[in-house]
Amino acid sequence: MRIGVLTAGGDCPGLNAVIRSVVHRAVTTFGDEVIGFEDGYAGLLDGRYRTLDLNDVGGILALGGTILGSSRLQRDRLREACENAQDMAREFGIDVLIPIGGEGTLTAARMLSDAGLPVVGVPKTIDNDISSTDRTFGFDTAVGVATEAMDRLKTTAESHQRVMVVEVMGRHAGWIALESGMAAGAHGICLPERPFDPADVVAMVEERFARGKKFAVICVAEGAHPVEGSMDYGHGAIDQFGHERFQGIGTALAYELERRLGKEAKPVILGHVQRGGTPTAYDRVLATRFGWHAVEAAHRGDFGRMTALRGTDVLMVPLAEAVTELKTVPKDRMDEAESVF
Amino acid sequence: MRIGVLTAGGDCPGLNAVIRSVVHRAVTTFGDEVIGFEDGYAGLLDGRYRTLDLNDVGGILALGGTILGSSRLQRDRLREACENAQDMAREFGIDVLIPIGGEGTLTAARMLSDAGLPVVGVPKTIDNDISSTDRTFGFDTAVGVATEAMDRLKTTAESHQRVMVVEVMGRHAGWIALESGMAAGAHGICLPERPFDPADVVAMVEERFARGKKFAVICVAEGAHPVEGSMDYGHGAIDQFGHERFQGIGTALAYELERRLGKEAKPVILGHVQRGGTPTAYDRVLATRFGWHAVEAAHRGDFGRMTALRGTDVLMVPLAEAVTELKTVPKDRMDEAESVF
Amino acid sequence: MRIGVLTAGGDCPGLNAVIRSVVHRAVTTFGDEVIGFEDGYAGLLDGRYRTLDLNDVGGILALGGTILGSSRLQRDRLREACENAQDMAREFGIDVLIPIGGEGTLTAARMLSDAGLPVVGVPKTIDNDISSTDRTFGFDTAVGVATEAMDRLKTTAESHQRVMVVEVMGRHAGWIALESGMAAGAHGICLPERPFDPADVVAMVEERFARGKKFAVICVAEGAHPVEGSMDYGHGAIDQFGHERFQGIGTALAYELERRLGKEAKPVILGHVQRGGTPTAYDRVLATRFGWHAVEAAHRGDFGRMTALRGTDVLMVPLAEAVTELKTVPKDRMDEAESVF
Amino acid sequence: MRIGVLTAGGDCPGLNAVIRSVVHRAVTTFGDEVIGFEDGYAGLLDGRYRTLDLNDVGGILALGGTILGSSRLQRDRLREACENAQDMAREFGIDVLIPIGGEGTLTAARMLSDAGLPVVGVPKTIDNDISSTDRTFGFDTAVGVATEAMDRLKTTAESHQRVMVVEVMGRHAGWIALESGMAAGAHGICLPERPFDPADVVAMVEERFARGKKFAVICVAEGAHPVEGSMDYGHGAIDQFGHERFQGIGTALAYELERRLGKEAKPVILGHVQRGGTPTAYDRVLATRFGWHAVEAAHRGDFGRMTALRGTDVLMVPLAEAVTELKTVPKDRMDEAESVF
Repeated sequence: MRIGVLTAGGDCPGLNAVIRSVVHRAVTTFGDEVIGFEDGYAGLLDGRYRTLDLNDVGGILALGGTILGSSRLQRDRLREACENAQDMAREFGIDVLIPIGGEGTLTAARMLSDAGLPVVGVPKTIDNDISSTDRTFGFDTAVGVATEAMDRLKTTAESHQRVMVVEVMGRHAGWIALESGMAAGAHGICLPERPFDPADVVAMVEERFARGKKFAVICVAEGAHPVEGSMDYGHGAIDQFGHERFQGIGTALAYELERRLGKEAKPVILGHVQRGGTPTAYDRVLATRFGWHAVEAAHRGDFGRMTALRGTDVLMVPLAEAVTELKTVPKDRMDEAESVF
Repeated sequence: MRIGVLTAGGDCPGLNAVIRSVVHRAVTTFGDEVIGFEDGYAGLLDGRYRTLDLNDVGGILALGGTILGSSRLQRDRLREACENAQDMAREFGIDVLIPIGGEGTLTAARMLSDAGLPVVGVPKTIDNDISSTDRTFGFDTAVGVATEAMDRLKTTAESHQRVMVVEVMGRHAGWIALESGMAAGAHGICLPERPFDPADVVAMVEERFARGKKFAVICVAEGAHPVEGSMDYGHGAIDQFGHERFQGIGTALAYELERRLGKEAKPVILGHVQRGGTPTAYDRVLATRFGWHAVEAAHRGDFGRMTALRGTDVLMVPLAEAVTELKTVPKDRMDEAESVF
Repeated sequence: MRIGVLTAGGDCPGLNAVIRSVVHRAVTTFGDEVIGFEDGYAGLLDGRYRTLDLNDVGGILALGGTILGSSRLQRDRLREACENAQDMAREFGIDVLIPIGGEGTLTAARMLSDAGLPVVGVPKTIDNDISSTDRTFGFDTAVGVATEAMDRLKTTAESHQRVMVVEVMGRHAGWIALESGMAAGAHGICLPERPFDPADVVAMVEERFARGKKFAVICVAEGAHPVEGSMDYGHGAIDQFGHERFQGIGTALAYELERRLGKEAKPVILGHVQRGGTPTAYDRVLATRFGWHAVEAAHRGDFGRMTALRGTDVLMVPLAEAVTELKTVPKDRMDEAESVF
Repeated sequence: MRIGVLTAGGDCPGLNAVIRSVVHRAVTTFGDEVIGFEDGYAGLLDGRYRTLDLNDVGGILALGGTILGSSRLQRDRLREACENAQDMAREFGIDVLIPIGGEGTLTAARMLSDAGLPVVGVPKTIDNDISSTDRTFGFDTAVGVATEAMDRLKTTAESHQRVMVVEVMGRHAGWIALESGMAAGAHGICLPERPFDPADVVAMVEERFARGKKFAVICVAEGAHPVEGSMDYGHGAIDQFGHERFQGIGTALAYELERRLGKEAKPVILGHVQRGGTPTAYDRVLATRFGWHAVEAAHRGDFGRMTALRGTDVLMVPLAEAVTELKTVPKDRMDEAESVF
C-alpha cells in the first residue's frame, strides 16, 4: 500500500508523533510506502512530496511543529482538488490520504472523500473542540503551558497585590480556559460559551479584597465576550497612524476592571506559547495511537472516517459527524469549575 | 452537613487537590463543616482530626503529598473500626466520610459502608489500575516524570552507545510502563500482564545494532516477569552479611542482557520520584472534579459509591464494583504500542 | 542577637530561600532570634512583624513570592524612618536589619545605615543590574522562563512562517534579553544599552526569507528603544475613551515590522510570568548563600555592606558602591551574542 | 581558516550548543570552513569527518547529546596520534583543532598541542571539577535534574515517613551533591571531599524524628565514602552466579541506615538521567560563549589553551594549568551548606 500523509492548519504539539506513528506502523508491520506532502494541501495540489522512511522519523516524537510543514487551505484550490481527487491519487500512486488537521482540514478531507479519494482523517486541535472525540492531542500541552504560567503569575500577583487577567487560547470553545483555570486555581474564568458580566468579576475581586486576599487571577478565553452592553471597553484601539488595532478580550477586561475597581489590573496574553514546543506525555500517547489506528483503518478500507478517542478506546467515526458541530463546554462542566462567570 | 475526609495509602500527586476541592465545594456552596482525619484511617480510629476551612486549603492545589498525612491500614484495626462504624460517626458528628485512597482504602471503605457508615469514596492510584474508572489522578504525573527521564536517558544512551533498562512503577498493572514507554519511544516495553522472554529483548537490541543504531532503551514495569525458565537472573542478591537483598526486575534484566549481549547494559530505577511532587494540570483537574462530585454525592445521599471518570464525565460507581478486579492493560493496548514484548 | 529581616520591591524567585537561610543559620548556629517585618519597610515603620523560627520557614525553599509580603517604598516615609532609625532599632530590640531588595531598597538601606541603624543588605533583582555582584538570584529563573517560552514559540513561528517579537523584562539593562536570546537562539536581540535601527531588523528578516527560512524570532528587552527618528511607531495608542494607552516596544516593533515587511509579525509580551514561581536550582543556591553570609556579616559587625557574588565566592561589598551605578550589558558581551542589533 | 572540531568523553548537555556556536562564529564572521570529526578522537585517527555548515547546526542548540558522536579515548591510539600530530593536521588540512571534552580529553589535547598540533580546548564536564574555570556547562543541568528529583522525593518521603538516600553523580568532586543538596534542602549531604561517619547521619535522622519530622532526605555523591572502619556495608554484593556486583555508596548507606535506625531507608540512584537531555538556559549560554571564544582564540593563534569562565568573563587559560589538579569542593563551601557531614 502507498500512503500519503499531510499536516494542515496551525501548529499543534503532537503532529510529529502522528507522522512517526503512521510511518512506523505502515512500514514496519505492513511493508507500506509512505509519502509526506509538504505544507499541507498545498503540497498535494502542487505535487510536492517526499518519501518517509524510519530514519526520517527518528527523534521527532518529542519535537514540536511538523517536519512536513503546514499551511492554511485556500478554498478555491480545494474545489480544484476535489475535481481532480481521483486523478491526484493516481498521479501520486497513493491508495489512501491521511490528512492531520483541525475542523477546516477535516471538512476538506470529507469533500475529497466524497469526491472519491480514499481518506482517513486524524483530528488535531489544541482547542479540543472537535465533536466525536473525547480529546484531541495538543490540548493537554496547551493546558499545561497555561497552567504553569498561571502558577507563576499567582505568586507575583499576590506579592504585588494586583489583579491579573490571563488570556488563553480558545476562540469558539473554552476548554483551555476551563481546564487551565481549574488546574491553576484561577479565581474567575470567562468562556466563549457563556457571556459574562464584568460587574460579577468586579464583585468577586472586591469580595476577595474584603477578605484580605489582595490579589486575583482571572483566566479568560480569547473568544469570551461580555453580556451585550455590560462592558465599556471593546476590541478597538487606534494606533498613531489612525489604524484600528485589535485588542483582545484580556486587555479590554483588564482595562475595564482597572476603571471600575480603581486598582491596577494587568493583562497577560499567553498567545502562541501555548501551541508550540514539546508535547506532554499524554499528547504523545494520544497522537501515537491516532497514527496507529489511521493505518489500521486504511488497511481495512475504512475510508471517510477519522480517529477518535472514546473513553479509553480509539475508534473510527464518520468525518461527516465530526465536522458538523463544534464541541463546546457544557453547563455541567462549568458548574464543576465553580469559578466560571 | 459535617463531612470527614481522610487520605490513606502511598503518596500520589493530586491528593491535596481533592481535599481542597471537597472543602471549597462543601463550605462555599453548602455551608458544610469539613474535618480532616490525620494519617488515614489511623486518625479516624484514634480520633485525631482538625477542622478544615478555606484558609487551610489555600495554596495547596499544586502541592505534592497530603496535608492530612497518610498511613497504611492495619487489618485488625479495620475490623475494630467496622464494629464501631456507626458509633464513630456519632462520636465525630460526621454525616459522611470521604476516604481518598487506592484499592486497600476503598475495600476498607466498602466494609465501613456495609457496616453502616455513610461513605463516598475517591479512588487514588498512580498505577491507574482501579476498575470502573477510565483514569485515576496521579497517573498522568507519574507517566510524565518517567517520560521526561527517558527523554534524557535516550540522548545519553545514544552518545554512550549503551543499552539502558529503565524500571518504572506498576506492580500488578503496566499502565505507567505502557504509556511512558510509548511517549518516550522506548525500543522495548515489558509489562506484568504478559511474561516476556529475554531472548526477544536480545534479538531486538541486536537487530538495532545491525542497523547501526548502537543503543536501546527498554522500559520495564517493576511487576514485569520473564517467561518461566527463560531468564538466568532472579530477584536475589546476597549482601555482605548474608542477607538476601531484593533486586528488581530492571536490575536483573540489565544483568541478563549484559551477559547475553556481551555489551554494557545499565539499569535505571526511577523509584519514588514518580509519585511525589507537583501534579500535572491533567491530574489537578481530575482530582478537583472528583472532590466536587464526592460532595455532590454526599448531599444526594449517594453512599457506598465512589467517583469515576467515564469518557469525559465523572460518575458515581458502586465501591463493590471498583474493588473486585484490577484493571490491567488489555491486549489491544499492547498491540498499539508495538514495542511490548 | 536579634535580627530583623524584610523583603521589599517586586516579586523575585528566591526571596523565600534567603529568608529561610537567614533563619536557619541564625537560629541553629548562633541561637539568635529572628523577626520578619511585614510588607517591606512599611512593616518596619508600622511595627508590624512576627518572629520567625525553623517551623515558619519549613517548605518555603522552592516557593515563589515572599512569605513576608512586600511593598514599594514611599520616599517621605523613608525620611521619617531615617530620622528615627536608632529609636526603631531600640523599639524592636533588633541588633541588625537585613533588608532584601533591589536598587531602591538598598539605597534606603544605605540611608538607614548612615543614620545609625546596623544594616546588612541582600541584593535582589531579576534584572541582574546591580553593580558589585556578578549575578543576583531571580535572574536565572527569569532567563529560564523566557528561554522556554521562546523554545516553544520557535516551532510555532516556523510552522506558521511568521515573524515573532518577544518582549522580555529589563527596563534599564538588557541581561534577560541577552541571555534568553542567546539560549533560545533568537535571530535578533534588542537591548536598552544600544539603540537599534528597525531597518537592520528588517534586513535580517529579509535575508532569512531569501535563504528559505521563512520565520524569525526577535527578542526585545522592554527598555530597548530605536535610534532617534528611525521608527514610525511609538509607545502610544488611544483607547476608546480617548485615554492614551502605553504600548511596549515589543508591540511597536511588531507593528513596524509588519508595515515594512508586508508580512504578519506578532508581538508576544511575556510579562510577569518571568518573575513568579519556583526558583531554579541556581537561584536557590545563590539565595541560600546570600542569606548565610548576611548572618555571618551581622555577627562580625560588618554593617553598611551587602552580599555579592564574585566569581565563585560570596563577599561583602559596601552598599555605597552597589547603588551608585547600574550594571549594564557591556559591548563585549553584545559581541559574543552576535545577534544583538 | 579550516577548523576541526570533535567531542569526546561522556554525554554532557551543551555539547551541541558549542558545536553550533563554533560553526556560527567561524562560518558567518570569518568565512571559515569547519569539519567535525566523528566519535571523538577516534574519528580524528580514522579520518572520519564531515563538513559542518549553518544548516547542519540548525535546531541543535537545545538538543541533548552530540551530533558528532563521542567515544572514550584509548591511550595507545593517543600516543600514535601524538607521533603523527602534524601530519594529521596536514592530511585534513586543518589549521586548528577544537576538542570539547573533560579532563582526559583536555590532557590528550595538551599532548597533541605539545606535539605540534594547533589546539584550542573547550572544557566539558557535568561534574564541574575542572580547575581554572569557575563553572563548566552541563553542571547546571545536572544540578537542576537532581534538584527536581529531590523536590519530588521530599513530598513522598514525608507522606511515607521514610528516610531516602539519593545518590547523585560526582566521582571525585562533590559539586553536584553540594548544590543540588542545597537547592532541594536535603537534610544531609555526603561529599567525596570529606569522609563521613554514618553515626552522624543516624544522629541527624534521630534528632529529626525526635522533633516530630518523621522523614529525611540525604544527598550523597557517588564518590562519597565513609570514615575508615565506620561503616559495615561496603560496595559488594554477590549475584546468583557468584559474581561480585558493585553496589554504590547510596545503596550501601541506605542499608546501613536501615540497620542502625531500625527504620526503612530507601536508596534512589539518579544515574544517567543527570547527564542527558535539553540543557538549561545557563548551560546553553555558557556553551555558546565557549564556542565563540574558541574561534576567536583560533584566529588570534592563541593555541595550547582552553576557554574558561572567570567571574563574568570568558578567558583563555593554559591547558597545562587546567588539567594538573581537580577542582574539589573547598571547606568554606561545605560550611555554607551546613548539612554537609
